[in-house]
Amino acid sequence: MSPTITLYTASTPNGYPISVALEELGVSYEVKALSFKENEQKSEWFLKINPNGRIPAIVDHKRGDFPVFETSAILLYLAQHYDPEHKISYDPITEPNLYNEEIQWLFFAHGGVGPMQGQTHHFLRYAPETIPYGVKRYQDETKRLYSVLENRLGKRDWLVGPHYGLADIKTLQVVRIGPWAGIDLDEFPNIQAWLTRIESRPKTDAGLGVPSRSNLQENLKNAAQIAAQAQASFGFKKD
Amino acid sequence: MSPTITLYTASTPNGYPISVALEELGVSYEVKALSFKENEQKSEWFLKINPNGRIPAIVDHKRGDFPVFETSAILLYLAQHYDPEHKISYDPITEPNLYNEEIQWLFFAHGGVGPMQGQTHHFLRYAPETIPYGVKRYQDETKRLYSVLENRLGKRDWLVGPHYGLADIKTLQVVRIGPWAGIDLDEFPNIQAWLTRIESRPKTDAGLGVPSRSNLQENLKNAAQIAAQAQASFGFKKD
Repeated sequence: MSPTITLYTASTPNGYPISVALEELGVSYEVKALSFKENEQKSEWFLKINPNGRIPAIVDHKRGDFPVFETSAILLYLAQHYDPEHKISYDPITEPNLYNEEIQWLFFAHGGVGPMQGQTHHFLRYAPETIPYGVKRYQDETKRLYSVLENRLGKRDWLVGPHYGLADIKTLQVVRIGPWAGIDLDEFPNIQAWLTRIESRPKTDAGLGVPSRSNLQENLKNAAQIAAQAQASFGFKKD
Repeated sequence: MSPTITLYTASTPNGYPISVALEELGVSYEVKALSFKENEQKSEWFLKINPNGRIPAIVDHKRGDFPVFETSAILLYLAQHYDPEHKISYDPITEPNLYNEEIQWLFFAHGGVGPMQGQTHHFLRYAPETIPYGVKRYQDETKRLYSVLENRLGKRDWLVGPHYGLADIKTLQVVRIGPWAGIDLDEFPNIQAWLTRIESRPKTDAGLGVPSRSNLQENLKNAAQIAAQAQASFGFKKD
């Protein structure tokens, strides 16, 4: 049987949430891993799916090949069309407040932790010049945002409501690789406990292997080499 | 009659979308303008409304004093509860594809144009050191994102579907002050035509006056003074 969804992705914090959600929902999908080295995300055919030329994106073959881009928009799309039992989402009609809280924390991650930690990665790992001001600015802001999550998770097991959901899934991988941004997760025990809860979920773990598993310890060991490769590759800005 | 919504805001690109939406929808609201100088957005009482300590936020008195933070989450909230005729939004049930497209472009603005142009403002206007690498990095990315909008608006009058809506409202003020990020709007004629269409709407124009109107030409004239004030004010990071 042909898959319901085609997922265009790569092994980055933006890519994993979608494979995690698809695994958790049990939706059939095929994976197309884009090559940043070959700048595939800016190719003409892909810009028709995502005019912003970034991963992830999906095409839904069951709904007339409808294309969706932006991680969090894809998560809300999958919830609307493929989560009728609300396994990883809340019902906009019967649980409108939880539904909106989920959206609040999605946007918090999407406009805050995600892009700001991405800037920390850039200045700490990839920038061709060393700019202490840039490292400090973004590391400080990323830590501030982590402390907002830390407070939130002191009072509850999941970012929103009584069960695991879209906001957890969106935030998960960014925070997991906090040490890549030079952040010591030991300073955030509530976040660590939340990560442990999440990582024990077999379906989420399966999603974190798509298209390939990211190995933080290995990456930290080879940081200099990864940075050099990134700088050498035209168009490959791992931010 | 007591107002339906209390809006906590300031005269920044993140604040205006909410007053614009409230004006367009005709929802009654009162305005509490927070003082960044006095760091009011980090005060204990406000952190109960928005744990991230930023404007805008709303409290909905008609729905049990429900608090909502994150600009785009507030826009989706107002659409769900106060736009039954879908004047500035699309119906998730009868127009699911337009509804999701709106969400895609909301996240595009929320995670892309918004934060990246904010970084340009910082390095160009407020950073206490001159860091050409930072200015170039964020100006280049902001221009790239504008070119995505420019392409999109070449084919249509509004970012999504047949009428003015949430994505336009979210993106509007960021792009209007492009010159504050050193961007020449003459390079983006489709964006300019779209801004002209939007600015002719009396209700949107009223929203752009809340809590007070931002005057780009005046600000550009006094840029050095504004930067000095921003640097002098503890906790006042206009980014």
